[in-house]
Order: sequence, then structure tokens, then C-alpha cells
Amino acid sequence: MPFVSEPSQPLATEDPQRVLVAGASGFAGALAAALVWRHPSLELVAATAREDAGTRLDRLYPRHRVPIELTELDESAARDCDAAIVAYPHGAAAPVVAELRGLGAIVVDLSADFRLRELPVYERWYGSHVAPELLEGAVYGLTELHRDAVRNAELVANPGCYPTAALLALAPLAKASLIDDVVIDAKSGVSGAGRGGGDKHHFVAVTENLTPYGTAGHRHEPEIAQELAALDGGSSEAPGVTFVPHLVPLDQGELASCYVRPARSVDREELDRLYAEAYADEPFVNLVPTPPGVRDVRETNMCLIHTTVSDPGGTLLVFAAIDNLWKGAAGQAVQNLNLMLGFPETLGLS
Amino acid sequence: MPFVSEPSQPLATEDPQRVLVAGASGFAGALAAALVWRHPSLELVAATAREDAGTRLDRLYPRHRVPIELTELDESAARDCDAAIVAYPHGAAAPVVAELRGLGAIVVDLSADFRLRELPVYERWYGSHVAPELLEGAVYGLTELHRDAVRNAELVANPGCYPTAALLALAPLAKASLIDDVVIDAKSGVSGAGRGGGDKHHFVAVTENLTPYGTAGHRHEPEIAQELAALDGGSSEAPGVTFVPHLVPLDQGELASCYVRPARSVDREELDRLYAEAYADEPFVNLVPTPPGVRDVRETNMCLIHTTVSDPGGTLLVFAAIDNLWKGAAGQAVQNLNLMLGFPETLGLS
Amino acid sequence: MPFVSEPSQPLATEDPQRVLVAGASGFAGALAAALVWRHPSLELVAATAREDAGTRLDRLYPRHRVPIELTELDESAARDCDAAIVAYPHGAAAPVVAELRGLGAIVVDLSADFRLRELPVYERWYGSHVAPELLEGAVYGLTELHRDAVRNAELVANPGCYPTAALLALAPLAKASLIDDVVIDAKSGVSGAGRGGGDKHHFVAVTENLTPYGTAGHRHEPEIAQELAALDGGSSEAPGVTFVPHLVPLDQGELASCYVRPARSVDREELDRLYAEAYADEPFVNLVPTPPGVRDVRETNMCLIHTTVSDPGGTLLVFAAIDNLWKGAAGQAVQNLNLMLGFPETLGLS
Amino acid sequence: MPFVSEPSQPLATEDPQRVLVAGASGFAGALAAALVWRHPSLELVAATAREDAGTRLDRLYPRHRVPIELTELDESAARDCDAAIVAYPHGAAAPVVAELRGLGAIVVDLSADFRLRELPVYERWYGSHVAPELLEGAVYGLTELHRDAVRNAELVANPGCYPTAALLALAPLAKASLIDDVVIDAKSGVSGAGRGGGDKHHFVAVTENLTPYGTAGHRHEPEIAQELAALDGGSSEAPGVTFVPHLVPLDQGELASCYVRPARSVDREELDRLYAEAYADEPFVNLVPTPPGVRDVRETNMCLIHTTVSDPGGTLLVFAAIDNLWKGAAGQAVQNLNLMLGFPETLGLS
Repeated sequence: MPFVSEPSQPLATEDPQRVLVAGASGFAGALAAALVWRHPSLELVAATAREDAGTRLDRLYPRHRVPIELTELDESAARDCDAAIVAYPHGAAAPVVAELRGLGAIVVDLSADFRLRELPVYERWYGSHVAPELLEGAVYGLTELHRDAVRNAELVANPGCYPTAALLALAPLAKASLIDDVVIDAKSGVSGAGRGGGDKHHFVAVTENLTPYGTAGHRHEPEIAQELAALDGGSSEAPGVTFVPHLVPLDQGELASCYVRPARSVDREELDRLYAEAYADEPFVNLVPTPPGVRDVRETNMCLIHTTVSDPGGTLLVFAAIDNLWKGAAGQAVQNLNLMLGFPETLGLS
Repeated sequence: MPFVSEPSQPLATEDPQRVLVAGASGFAGALAAALVWRHPSLELVAATAREDAGTRLDRLYPRHRVPIELTELDESAARDCDAAIVAYPHGAAAPVVAELRGLGAIVVDLSADFRLRELPVYERWYGSHVAPELLEGAVYGLTELHRDAVRNAELVANPGCYPTAALLALAPLAKASLIDDVVIDAKSGVSGAGRGGGDKHHFVAVTENLTPYGTAGHRHEPEIAQELAALDGGSSEAPGVTFVPHLVPLDQGELASCYVRPARSVDREELDRLYAEAYADEPFVNLVPTPPGVRDVRETNMCLIHTTVSDPGGTLLVFAAIDNLWKGAAGQAVQNLNLMLGFPETLGLS
Repeated sequence: MPFVSEPSQPLATEDPQRVLVAGASGFAGALAAALVWRHPSLELVAATAREDAGTRLDRLYPRHRVPIELTELDESAARDCDAAIVAYPHGAAAPVVAELRGLGAIVVDLSADFRLRELPVYERWYGSHVAPELLEGAVYGLTELHRDAVRNAELVANPGCYPTAALLALAPLAKASLIDDVVIDAKSGVSGAGRGGGDKHHFVAVTENLTPYGTAGHRHEPEIAQELAALDGGSSEAPGVTFVPHLVPLDQGELASCYVRPARSVDREELDRLYAEAYADEPFVNLVPTPPGVRDVRETNMCLIHTTVSDPGGTLLVFAAIDNLWKGAAGQAVQNLNLMLGFPETLGLS
Repeated sequence: MPFVSEPSQPLATEDPQRVLVAGASGFAGALAAALVWRHPSLELVAATAREDAGTRLDRLYPRHRVPIELTELDESAARDCDAAIVAYPHGAAAPVVAELRGLGAIVVDLSADFRLRELPVYERWYGSHVAPELLEGAVYGLTELHRDAVRNAELVANPGCYPTAALLALAPLAKASLIDDVVIDAKSGVSGAGRGGGDKHHFVAVTENLTPYGTAGHRHEPEIAQELAALDGGSSEAPGVTFVPHLVPLDQGELASCYVRPARSVDREELDRLYAEAYADEPFVNLVPTPPGVRDVRETNMCLIHTTVSDPGGTLLVFAAIDNLWKGAAGQAVQNLNLMLGFPETLGLS
């Protein structure tokens, strides 16, 4: 019994931008392909995969309903696009990005390969770097913080999911140099860890469980520290950051619970003002009056943020919820691509 | 910290149809309100609720992102619409439907109140009927089976979620008078049972559990039997139906596993032909080569169907997966409303 | 930070039977090791594993709290036991069982290798058999049906989890030759499929999903058919069996929903009598007045059975719930071992 | 179809202590009743409930397999026991405890009514107190911290589940006056919130969700602060405590992630020594070399603790996992009762 054939890609535009998604068999890459497929002004020219080439994407991810065959990434595919989203593992992404850039495509890279500005920091966490010459031109794609730079970038390093939630939560305080130190207790659904993982991500290991991990240091910590320090430009000392992720029995969704010891006392009113100034006009950030649940943002590109001043101690509590595959990966990639291509930032994302 | 205000409803049409959703605080009603809100040619003029009037819908269901306040259903609201979707409980729906019809609105009713053609059958399962005079004009809104009647209907009785999956699975066989008897073993996520349910639907009662229910007779059985008999027009005897639902620890999703003892031997080829004839052109029904998972249709209006001929015995196996809140309730309601209002059937549903 | 040392195995008996568990790194084998460990009259002399030798069992399964190191299965370990539970995959079990039997140990084998009496049937489903000479002496270890044979057996083939639930549900009817044909719609938690499975059993693939599988024929079907035919000794024709398993998002638990077309009309009273006669004195089978949930038997060796006569058609509905790792595997293995060793059947299992 | 009758309570002792469980229809009370039922030296003389009197306990909680009928709590039941476990809601417990104490029974109370030593603190969080005269004699029943006092107590206030995990995590540091301030980010399964909760604990609201709550102050915070201050006897200033609980989609299990800013630098070696001194001989506390998952302690009375020194900042990370219904409620209640009655502390709990 064959698949009944699907409609072809719906395009509202006559002259769409041609987009390649490299690494479309993983969770984030597949969603990126689906978002491009449904985007009114982007044409999905190819979705590539290393092991699953030859398989139809809607067999791997029926719900995304992208009825095209995964192919291998070869030069002709790489030549044949205006832009690319690369969803390769760390380390494997850099050479692909370099090749695509060499052929002229603008690129949003989902890996960590171009996120860390200091090569030694990268090498400490990820090993040697294949294309360090591209680091300088790469823009860190946390859109709300670097919108103008993204607009003019040819290579965007899409942030990790944890940094996305944590930095959106903390940016208004960091910019005001108000963070002395911060504990970031983050919780993520399993899709954040990708398709692999073996026994650790087997259903039986995860259901009715809840586990901290990376307690001896997680790769997202230097990324968070780098950006917090950059935001907190004028301060003599970078904020102290303690970051611990936890694996939670759900598929998509991420919550960053941030506990800030402020540099000075901050009251409710100032807190409201800082966050409203930062986010009042942001299409994908909402300030909410009660703590958000990750389900509130499931399958959306939204980040919900709630702030509290803890009564006696003056600790500031900031909670940020995102969908790790959307705002934490593929959704933000399309948000960035929209800006790079001159489209409205929200196009194809609501 | 207030909600940052949301954009108003996006409407592509200048002169949209004005739609009321009554009972928008339940799972199905809230989704119906969200689908109307996002629909390019429908304007959501009011979303009403009995207990939750005064609450913003996006506080109850943040993810739907419908930034309007629930109101009470009064006459002015009822007057002020072209069409209504009613999502009241069985029994409570009939008087509301009658009032809305009296004021001239066309209505899609999600309750059972207008599904059963024989009043005594209704009364046996649901008690006395407040508006039996409307039964005759009501069209059973399983769109794929009654499309032309729906197009001309002023009152559509939207099918139950179980009958939707079971009847789509069985219709091609029933129309060919091929069903001697059938066992329908159905499994549903918890949202199918609505927001109430008390202890039975408490997270702790459901997680890591799996339970048959309604084994002494379920209200959806007469609905399935009525429609199967109607499809099987020419046969002397109605098909024997055994229907047992099971509660499964997931939120949205429904699977009907149907075991048909055929009236005569049916081979693979005939089966393919029957189902292709029935569904090849259907936008919301896909025939799939492997058994579908409910996750494949999550948050879509699709029904995936897979058929198998059991080797030695000749039993026919038919599996149909839907999202009980979409194709099983609110999605199909909008599908029907599209037809009643002369819009393309898929508008606002993909 | 080292593990604080654990207490040694608690033994109530001075002269315990020495038990080896081969294949203790899988779900069922690990539980078998834990049950032997806690058993007052059994001493766990070794728990072996192929890939995980050298790892402490309580690192793999902290909750079982068995503080011993997994070892490789060598001859000295095999010599050094009175009895063994073998939890190897199908095909890999037979040579291990043969070796252990050769050295004199009595064996309960959890694989399918000695369940099917007809070699050709085995070979059709599992490939060639390494030790067919042991088939004749092997006893099918569904304890409640073959208690006396188990008592005298030296090799017990522990049933599959699906056959355990289905056969306990159907045995009283089969013995009375009352089954014309039966649909068995079975649902299992993921642990039933073992530790492997790759992408299919990744948390993200299973959560909020529900899928039929093995619809083209499942290995447990011939096992069920063989035993039903044996129970239904006098009838001219074996009952027709349609068996379809479904994967459900929970870890442990299995439900067999059985729909029996009876050979003749059976009423409530006769049904009660048949099941009471079969199970009134069974320590691990309970007849319950409402449909059981799998959570009711979680982490127990119980089987709960509920029966219903479907009103118009006379179809008999029988629901049986077990914990697939307990009564469906390791629990029943210890139940059988108790009988083989002359202990009370329930020892160490409550 | 009746329940097949169950065996009566298995008792190893000739002259058991007679125990009443008041409030046995809730999650914690029902488990307490089950633990008493299976305890070799305790006899369950009555299990009482307000709304569910007349129902058999094994109908409400089949898995616990306690085949007795819930009764109302009247004077004759109260007279007829040596000891009682009270599992009433806060406020409702105090009068019941007072009555039972008046009749001579020793009591373990699961509510908050006798946990807070300062009446004004109690009243701020819970309202007026019905039996303040009993506060002074009540012993805070975190067994590992107050073992000797528990042994001699006639009224034990069993700790809340969050304080149990947090205080076990922090006690070795608090006793050494090493905590300047601490962030406790706690995560709990839904059973921690009890059987009620309405919409918030409906399966659909919880699954695939994750939410902070009580961010404006949670009742367990003063309980934690009181005990930390008491442990930190010599310090001039009580440790600063920020405590935020989160609801996680699992039924049983709780994790306290504690981030301690130490009063002075503490290295790995000192940390190991402090925790080993505190817990090396504890039967229900294990120090583990990797972060624990809550599943590791499911259905056990264990607390697993893991500590880490965060590299640059010197923040101390302490993670403690418990089963909120066992060590966080009913298990610890029996642990305390064992001590009060002169039994081995672990009796009936392994």
C-alpha cells in the first residue's frame, strides 16, 4: 500500500529564496526542513542526511509531512542554494559550513562550531576547529540580542537551546550590570539531546525519572558566560555563573530557572521596567504574570519570561520557557534566516 | 507584571464570516476558538463559557494564544454571529443549539445531541431530549461520508471522536457490504474525556496505566452502529459491532484497531482498490503502508489508515489514527463549517 | 565519592539453593537477579552478562539494589550452581541452556527457544535450533496451566509476556472448547521489547504515541495458538486466533483485551463458574469486578482478569493485566523455580 | 463477579503493636496503611477516611493490595490502638492528633501542624492552630537528624517531602556552619501534591509540561529555614534560603538540587569527609558517585545524595533524590514509628 501522494510545497512567492537543509534527519534539522517547506517565501531545494539518504523525510517524521526524499550532500546540491541551515553535530558542521560559504551560500549553523569567539575556549570543550578563519565573521544568533548584526551576517551561529533560554532570561539584568552571580538550574525535554544517546534516552530510562547531568561542567556554560560578559560590558568583573541541566520526562520543552544575586537591591518596579524595555516590542518574547509551563510554548517560537523578587533576601528569580526545538534551534534558525534575507522576522513562524 | 498585549486577530479577508464558539473553556471548544481565531476568513466574535466567563482564554490555554476574554453566552452574542460552534456537554447543548438556530445562525454542534437519528436510541443513552424537532434536519458531520449534505446543512452534528476514527476505518468495507461483524478496540488519550473526570483523570491515576472502560456499553457504540448500518444500505442484516474503548497515558491521539470478519473473502488487491476509491482524493485521509502511530497525526486534522489481511483466517485488520481534538472534534467542526460557508474545505486547517 | 557499601544478601535459610542468572543486564534478567537476591531460600551465586561484565548491577539498575558485579559466563560459574535462569535473546539462549543442563543445573529459560513443541514452527519464526534434542523434555512454564509438569521439570520454557496474559485470559474458555475464534488486541509497555530497539524506543518516539506493530504476524502468535489448541483438547478444530500487539507509552505493564466468538452461547453465570473453577485458589490470579488497569499489577506477579458478556452479540470480553517483567518474565521464572525446587510457589514473590 | 478473597494480614509476631491509620484514602495515607499491613510487627487495626468510608482500600489502590474496608474515625477505633499515623490535611490533623494523644496513642502526624516550633510562623502560613499545647512536645521527625528524640517521642511531626530531601542534602554543611546562602531548586512528581488539585493535576495539564510554582513563597520554606538554623547552632546568622518547587510529569519522585555559597572554601576532600561522617552508617541514605535519578529510589525509603564542588566559583552542588511518598511521607513515618516502638529502624521497609 503506497503513500497517497502529497501536495507539492505551497509557495506564496513567485521568486522564493532557495534553501538547503543539511542534516535533516535529526530532530532539529527535520523541523528546520519542515519550517522551510511551509515558509511562504522559502523553497526547500534539498534536505540532506548522511545515514538516512534515500529515505523520505515523512517516513522518519510523519507528522512534519514533508514528502521529499533525503539526499546526500554533494557539491551540486550545495551550489544550488541561496542559503543553508546546517544541523550537523559539533565538529562535523564546520567543514560543511566552510564549503557552503565557499560556494556563496549564506548559512545558519545550528552547531556550536561558530558560537564561541575564543578559539581556545572552543578547543577546550569541543576539540580542534576545522575552520577557525570563519569565527571572526560569525554572528551569535540570539536574535533579540544581536538583531542588527544578524541582518548583515553571512554566517550565523545559532545558539544552543540552554543559552537561548538562559540569556533571554538574564539579558536585561546583565545589560544593567546587575548580576553578581547567578545559578541557572535548567530542565530540558529529551529531544534537546538529539536522536542518539542509546540506553540513556530509551523510554524506560527516562519515564518516571528526572536526573541532573553535566554537573562537572556542561558545554553550554562557556557560551552563557561569554554572552553574559559581553552584555555586561562596563563591569570590572564577569558575573559568576553556575549552570546545571536536568533531563525531564517530556519530549520538547525547556525551562531555565535563574536565581540572581544582584549587584545591588532591585525592586519590583525597576525589574518590570528593565524587562519591559528589553522585550515589550519583541514578537517572540512575552512577559507573563505567573510562572510559565513549557507546554505553554510547545511547538511555538515563543519565549515566556516571568520574574519575581524573593522577599527577604532580595534574590531575583527569573524563569524562561521555550520549545528547545523551536526557539532553541530550528525556529530561531528560520527567524535569523528571515532577517538575513530581508523578510519580516516572523514570516513562516506563527 | 501584565501580559504584554497581543496582536489582534489576523484576517486575510475583508468581509469575514462572524463565528461564535459556545463552551470555549473545554479542550475541544478552546481548540475550536483557536482554529477560528487563526482562520483567514472567519472572525471570532465571541468565545463563551459558563464557569470561566471573565477569564482570558490565553490564561486557560496559553499555547493557543487567543488573547480574548471568555464571556457569558447571552442573546446579544447569539444574535451577533453568522455561525456558531457549540461545545457544550451532551444534554446541555440542545437548548443552546435551538436558541442559536432560532436566531438564524448556522451551527456545528460537538455534542451527541443531534447525532442519533432515532429519538428512543438517544434517550436510552443520554436521557430526554430538549429539541427533538431539530433532529430531522441535522446532518451527521463525518465530512468524508456526508460532504454534500454538510454543504447544504444548517445544523451539523459533529461526530464523536471514536466514531470518527472507526467509521473512516470501516466505511469502504461497509459500503461494499463486506462486514459480517467487527471488533473495534479503540484507544484514546485523556483529552478525549474532557476537562473533568476527577480522580480518574488525575495525572497519578493515568500515568503508567492503561485501562479498558465502558465495557458494559459505551455511548459511541450506537452512533457507530447507526452509521455502519446506513453505509451498508443494501444488506439484510446490520453488521455486528463490538466496541471497547481504552484510556491510554497520552494527551491527544486516538487509534481504532478494527478486526473485521468479512462477509466473503477479500484479498489484498480488492482491499487496496476499495480504500483507494474511497480516499485517494481526500485531503484529510491518508492511506499508509505501515501501521500509524497517533503521534503521526498530533495537532493535525489528518486520519491515517492502514489495512492488512490476516493470513490464515482472512480477518481484515484496519487501523485508523486521528487526533481526537482535531479530526475527532474541533478540526472536523471547522472542516464542516468551511463547507457550510462555501469556503475550501481545508482552509485554516493546515 | 565511592558507593557506601551495601549489606550482603539477606538469607533466611542456612542451606540455600545456588542460582545463576545468565543475561542479567537486560530488563528481565536484571529483575530475575534482584528477585533471586531478595529470595529467602535462593543464593545468587553469579549474574552474568556479555557486554556489561565488570559493571556492578546496581550501577545499571540502581533501584534493584543488587550490589554485585556482573561477570562473564564461564564454565566455573556454570558448574557452581544448582539452578539457572537464562535471559538471553532467542537463538542465543539454546546453547547456554544446553551447556547448563549438561553440567547438571535445572534451568528456567526466558527465551522462546524451548517454547514451541514443533521444530518446524520454531524454525519458521526464529531460524535454526541449536539444541532441538532438549525440546521434548522442556515444560511450557505457564505455571497455572502446567503446575504439575513444572514441579517435575528440569528445563522450563518460560512463556512470553503476551502469551502469559492471553492464555490466562482464555484458558477457562479453551478448556471448555468454547472458543470459535478470538481477537487478542494486546498492549504493552516498552520494557516488554527489551533494552535495544534504537530509534523506535527512544523516549521521543514513544511518548505521546501509540502504535500497532507486528500486524503481519508476531512471534507470540504460534505460541498462543499452540497452547490454546492443547487446552482445547477434544475439539476437532483449533480456535482461530488473531493477535495484534500495540506499543503504549509506559514502561511496565501489559493488557490483553480478548474478544471471543463463542462456540455456543455462554451466560454470565456460566462464565463466572468457569473462571472461578480455574482460578479461585490461584495465588497470582485475581478475578476482578471491573476492568483492570495495568498499574494495578505494577511490580507484582499478579494477573487480574475481568470478564464481560457483550449484550446483543454474545461476544465474550476477557481482559487480563500483568506486569510484563514480573508475571510476564522474571516473576513467573521464580514462581516456576520455586516449584522445581520444592519451595512454596509464592516464596520471595510478595 | 466478586473479588476473590484475599489472605489476611501476614504477621510474624505474636503480640504485634496495634496501629490506626487515619486519612488512609489519600496517596500518603494509603501507602502508610499498606506499609503497616505488610509490617511483620504491626497490626493494622483500622484505616479511616472521611469521604471514602465504606470503600475497600484495594478498590481505591488495587496495587497496595490491602483488602480491608475504610471506616470512619470514631472514638472506639481511636481507643483501640497503640499507635496512629495521621494523614489528614494541614489544620484538620491537629484535632485528630489531640484526640488520639488524649486517648493514649503515640502518633506520627504527616501534616504540617506540629512541624513549626514557633506558633506565629505556623499561623502566618496555615492559619490558627487548634492544639498549640502539643507543639512543645512534638519532635521533628527527620529521622537521621533527630533519631534519639524520635525514640522517646510520643508525638512525631513527620517532615514535608521537600524539607526531607533538602535537609538531608544540606545537614552536613549546616552542622559545620558552612552555608552562607543556598538556592534549593526542587522538582517533584505529582503525587507530592495529593489527590486533589483539580484542573492543575489533570493528566492533560501535567503531561509534557514542567512548571515552577509557589515562587511567591511556599509553605515548606519556613520549615527548611527553621531546621537549617537549628543545625547551624553556633552561627550568628541563619543561612539565606531561596526555595522554589517545580511540578514535573511523573508520579512519584523528588529531587532537590541545592546550590550552596559556602562560608569559606570547601574542597572535595572535606566535602567527602563531612558527608561520610554524617551518613556512612545510615541505612536509608546512600552517597553516590554520579547524580541520582528519582527513578533510582522509586518505591524505596532511600535518599541518594551526590555532591560536587563547582570549579571556578567554589559553589557547592548537592543533589538529593527521594520517593516523596516513601522517605518523603509514609516510609519515614514507619521509620519513625519503628523507633518509637523499639523496633529495628528498617523493619518492614526493605
